[in-house]
Amino acid sequence: MLSSEKRYLLEVSDLRDVAIIGVGETRLGELWDKSLRELGIEAGLKALKDAGLKGDEVEKLYVGNMSAGKLIDQEHIAPLIADYAGISEVPSTRVESGSASGGIALAEGFKAVASGMEDIVVVGGAEKMTDVGEQEAKDILSSTADQEWETVFGATFVSLYAMMARYHMEKYGTTKDQLAQVAVKNHSNAAKNPNAQFPREIKKEFVKNAPMVADPLGMFDCAPISDGAASVVLCPAERAESFHGKPVKIAGIGQGGDYMSVHERKHICTMKATERAAKKAYSRAGIGPRDIDFAEVHDNYTITEIMSIEDLGFFKKGEGGKATEEGKTDINSHIPINTSGGLKAKGRPVGAVGLNQAVEAVLQLREDAGERQVNEPRYGLIHNIGGTGASSIVHILKRWS
Amino acid sequence: MLSSEKRYLLEVSDLRDVAIIGVGETRLGELWDKSLRELGIEAGLKALKDAGLKGDEVEKLYVGNMSAGKLIDQEHIAPLIADYAGISEVPSTRVESGSASGGIALAEGFKAVASGMEDIVVVGGAEKMTDVGEQEAKDILSSTADQEWETVFGATFVSLYAMMARYHMEKYGTTKDQLAQVAVKNHSNAAKNPNAQFPREIKKEFVKNAPMVADPLGMFDCAPISDGAASVVLCPAERAESFHGKPVKIAGIGQGGDYMSVHERKHICTMKATERAAKKAYSRAGIGPRDIDFAEVHDNYTITEIMSIEDLGFFKKGEGGKATEEGKTDINSHIPINTSGGLKAKGRPVGAVGLNQAVEAVLQLREDAGERQVNEPRYGLIHNIGGTGASSIVHILKRWS
Repeated sequence: MLSSEKRYLLEVSDLRDVAIIGVGETRLGELWDKSLRELGIEAGLKALKDAGLKGDEVEKLYVGNMSAGKLIDQEHIAPLIADYAGISEVPSTRVESGSASGGIALAEGFKAVASGMEDIVVVGGAEKMTDVGEQEAKDILSSTADQEWETVFGATFVSLYAMMARYHMEKYGTTKDQLAQVAVKNHSNAAKNPNAQFPREIKKEFVKNAPMVADPLGMFDCAPISDGAASVVLCPAERAESFHGKPVKIAGIGQGGDYMSVHERKHICTMKATERAAKKAYSRAGIGPRDIDFAEVHDNYTITEIMSIEDLGFFKKGEGGKATEEGKTDINSHIPINTSGGLKAKGRPVGAVGLNQAVEAVLQLREDAGERQVNEPRYGLIHNIGGTGASSIVHILKRWS
Repeated sequence: MLSSEKRYLLEVSDLRDVAIIGVGETRLGELWDKSLRELGIEAGLKALKDAGLKGDEVEKLYVGNMSAGKLIDQEHIAPLIADYAGISEVPSTRVESGSASGGIALAEGFKAVASGMEDIVVVGGAEKMTDVGEQEAKDILSSTADQEWETVFGATFVSLYAMMARYHMEKYGTTKDQLAQVAVKNHSNAAKNPNAQFPREIKKEFVKNAPMVADPLGMFDCAPISDGAASVVLCPAERAESFHGKPVKIAGIGQGGDYMSVHERKHICTMKATERAAKKAYSRAGIGPRDIDFAEVHDNYTITEIMSIEDLGFFKKGEGGKATEEGKTDINSHIPINTSGGLKAKGRPVGAVGLNQAVEAVLQLREDAGERQVNEPRYGLIHNIGGTGASSIVHILKRWS
């Protein structure tokens, strides 16, 4: 191993700063009339237009996608999307890490620009989940858990998260009311987001009385099956202002790993992958959790938001439920969480989620988030989990000035 | 766009040189008793041992895999392999680009080290293809072509390549004898490779008289369905000698794209993606095709090797068949091609192929290739194609001194 001084020498002193100069996303939902490639292109072209760029200026495309092979019988989708976007000659790479595919694709795009290997990089995420039946879509989600040690024995994706919820309730006194409040808040935020799949408020009783999926998680504790895409354009920060009046800087990135199976972990309601990712991202950005003004966190289930706001350091372990109930994660409270509506209510096109989060963070940092705008944010954090937490990625974004 | 001086400023002057300090691979074949994770781990541990490293020194893992979702019902395989290798905390990322997944994963690993973001990176490729029936495996290969415009109308993967072969024969006078000679040569090389799936020589008449798959490609013009894995360890070149006595330098990388569907291309027996990739790789290495001493090229079908040795600049377009027939691609002739046996006879675990090629190139440049050793090679080129040529990646490797 190199010495620690050497270890980050180039990262700290020589890597280029990277900015996001364009964002675009489709509406999320059951989009029967749009194919995966159409969704990918729509988001990509919106992002390029936002950056004032044309396709022939793109040097590299990264595509985050979880399971096009199983969902639409199509592998090799990065060149497919490049081709149909009219930039077939551009090198393109698909990145997959379960539902963290989008966030981890963004990290690869960052690396391409930060290293100096490319200048203009588009990172898109796209998923088309409604071309298969709902049960099949759920089985495909389960294929991001360990097939040989978990799902083959009957564990479903939601049941693995339900065990985390049950343990959190037992150990920390987290209540079904607190879980429900995550859904209520995120639906309330989604009501202010024109791209959301479920742009409407719901009442807590509605969540608590919904049909049970895997105890204690009911139907409204679960994010939906969604179609959708999102995209960002990256360039070296030194040139960002020539493309967009309000660029956003990527201040820190951290990626973490953990055991694949839930049963291997010592504490099933702490995601070590998220803790590891957050630690690196904070360190690289030179800030801590208190400096973050808002965050988009991975709320595939209500319990996941509660665990994540603890693992990211916003609240002590065990206090996430209470904090949520007290309104501390509402817009313009202590730390606004999932102002977009989150996976829960904005939608969950799995491989695109990390980019949907990036789009929201950029809009917030530009102060272009309309009714759901956070008050003058300086730092925003986005957090994307793969599977049941074997992979996790955190990006910290910073307003331009 | 930045000016051209600026464009590669960091790449040429500031990016770190990257070396391969360890390689490992499994035997290729129908490995009924080994699962995907076992194959991935076997190759990875061999590569680490070769580099004299332990798992806890690995900072990042990239995994090239084409279709574990469809082949073994498992997505999210990068953290799965990290976990079962005993390094669950290490961030891991899967890269997919059809059968170029392995090569493109290697390019991402290169970027991670060259940028200074990580020092010790393992890049592995693994595929388990024989857990499904042969027809299903072939359908999965077809999912790397355009499902909406090609395979849905009945085009199979091999039939798309057969059209290229037919056109090459019509336009350039390439013969079935010349196609067959590719198979004969690669089987002859594989006979000297203990990891090869088919380590035995075959006669030209045998290839020509084999059952037809898609005219003019018979069964022995086609690479097999294979299980297998391969892995390399990367580090900054300046530290390479402290890990291995004979490191190998990555001198140049180029990735190219093209139209997804064969019918979109103007010349179906030229792969623009390969031409684009090769041009960049040669430029970055500061050399040309004449400087290359041997190459591993993507011979999923015999015609593909002939097209590729033309697209890579070793022979003029249309002359690849004749050159092969004249023995110019034999070991220790003009330009030895696929000394390992290639996809054709060493085997084709699709997502691992690019890493299998890297392993062979490193062994050759170390002069550790045994009976199939090329005479004192200085530069080796490896070339990996995704699908029917919508993505392509070229790496140029250089001996240490």
